[in-house]
Amino acid sequence: MCSKPKSYVDLVNDCDRFPYDDPLKPIGDHWSSLYQFRLPEDPRTHGFMLGSTVKNMPWTDDFVIDHEARTVRLAPTEDKGDLAASCTKAFSRLIQRAIDEDTFRVIHRSHSEPYPIVGANYPVSIERYASTLFGIISRGAHLTVYTKTASGMKIWVPRRSPKLFTYPNCLDTTVAGGVAFGEGPFECVVREADEEASLPEDLVRKQVVHCGCISYVGLNDRGGGGEAGLIAPDIMYVYDLEVPEHVICKQNDGEVKEFYLMSIDQVKEGLAKAEFKTNSALVMIDFFIRHGIITAENEQKYAEIIARLHRRLPLPTRPQ
Amino acid sequence: MCSKPKSYVDLVNDCDRFPYDDPLKPIGDHWSSLYQFRLPEDPRTHGFMLGSTVKNMPWTDDFVIDHEARTVRLAPTEDKGDLAASCTKAFSRLIQRAIDEDTFRVIHRSHSEPYPIVGANYPVSIERYASTLFGIISRGAHLTVYTKTASGMKIWVPRRSPKLFTYPNCLDTTVAGGVAFGEGPFECVVREADEEASLPEDLVRKQVVHCGCISYVGLNDRGGGGEAGLIAPDIMYVYDLEVPEHVICKQNDGEVKEFYLMSIDQVKEGLAKAEFKTNSALVMIDFFIRHGIITAENEQKYAEIIARLHRRLPLPTRPQ
Repeated sequence: MCSKPKSYVDLVNDCDRFPYDDPLKPIGDHWSSLYQFRLPEDPRTHGFMLGSTVKNMPWTDDFVIDHEARTVRLAPTEDKGDLAASCTKAFSRLIQRAIDEDTFRVIHRSHSEPYPIVGANYPVSIERYASTLFGIISRGAHLTVYTKTASGMKIWVPRRSPKLFTYPNCLDTTVAGGVAFGEGPFECVVREADEEASLPEDLVRKQVVHCGCISYVGLNDRGGGGEAGLIAPDIMYVYDLEVPEHVICKQNDGEVKEFYLMSIDQVKEGLAKAEFKTNSALVMIDFFIRHGIITAENEQKYAEIIARLHRRLPLPTRPQ
Repeated sequence: MCSKPKSYVDLVNDCDRFPYDDPLKPIGDHWSSLYQFRLPEDPRTHGFMLGSTVKNMPWTDDFVIDHEARTVRLAPTEDKGDLAASCTKAFSRLIQRAIDEDTFRVIHRSHSEPYPIVGANYPVSIERYASTLFGIISRGAHLTVYTKTASGMKIWVPRRSPKLFTYPNCLDTTVAGGVAFGEGPFECVVREADEEASLPEDLVRKQVVHCGCISYVGLNDRGGGGEAGLIAPDIMYVYDLEVPEHVICKQNDGEVKEFYLMSIDQVKEGLAKAEFKTNSALVMIDFFIRHGIITAENEQKYAEIIARLHRRLPLPTRPQ
């Protein structure tokens, strides 16, 4: 919580934290100190790693580090003809070592669900907690559920459980989750809508509108509960669901403490007070832009905010 | 018209043509040959000019050219205490000379309406045709009018008059216009909706939804009817208007030949055949994304297209 009310651009700055290159100045200042992560048989860079991560990682023989070129190349020692499986296995061996040796706070001695490397040419996965260390693109799906009432539009906003590891007690998007390995963003939303807000699958499948995606490059902070300064490129797929007033969102698992049906002014207040999870604030801002609540006429930084919400990531987002 | 059907990303490439910098390579390749245009009492760059433009421009004493630093600085010789008026007047003198000497095709010996320099700290204006030579941000407002019918969503699409100087006979956004000096984008849409599509002001003011903006950096081509290769940063403010089936769009001035009520498939076909004005195609794509017609599930380049539609411009979009 900060005492000075946050503007919309403040909230964007809190999330899209990796500096931009000035086209009029020599580049490389921001990126040149980072290590580029590469996969076998693919010349493209799939992640950016801090020098400190490269230094502290308990590397196995599956990874080739070139300090001169600043690259980390995955080259599985056990290649059984299936490159994707060999890569995934190499990650597992490495992560097990990092867990055993308790090398990184962000892994906190735990395994986590498999995340894909989205731009890879084959379906390779890495555990969620460890993916942050490799600076790989993560993907989330966010659904905003709203209703039109006699007193104006209202949005269903949950408060996160105080027991959560990340952003406890913060306000959040109605429904949100990380897109897991082998899953599409829409399937993720359908699954999470039931798990988190008790919304029937049939309603979600038929009525949800796909509305685009937000992209930014974060730098992990303490709120995320790991090493500070990790490069965190993120894509958030955004969805809207308008429901009649009688449809109620209620918690269905331990991640949500309670749901509120907030007026637009209440959501604005929550944003200004930095009560929202950092990247969920961007989903609310994007919703406000698409629904004409934030306009070119009432927000001087309109064009700037919209470009920042859709940052072109310096990593591939699809197979070649 | 091209024979191979255009993909959505092809259409984006046709418009957002100025190359991107690779964050992993030294920058400056694309920008370093350009001249930066500056205003008095403002250290920021407001436009990018080609070397050939700087060479051919019949400069007056109001402009200081530094070939070493590659800058063009406006320094009005007649300063009567009002900086904005002095700058605007300096532009007028220069443009008059360029018209008299018929220096540039893009001016085609004609005066045009005043356009603002959007990031300026004071209200300075430059004629529309000439603004392109200075590589200044231009702004348009685009309204998509649609209706939901028993056979699905339909969009009102005009065909441009064959007599127009730019993009004759092309399909277009329902209503579109350049945002003039001293005008906001919403006022522009209200004005153009009446002028171009006979839509009543009251309906437009009450029902139009502000939906964000698109930004890109174009390179002028022959279709635009001027010198090729001029840097053309553009912001298009996008608006939606859902109307009942009985509301009809019909031409009200000479710019539109006729209106069609097109199904989504017909619009897709028009896009694939490159029948739309280049930047109006982007407005259709953005509409398709916001309305769930293009999704992450049916378009592999989804995240890439969305980021490209919202390019961060290398020029200020507001006063400092």
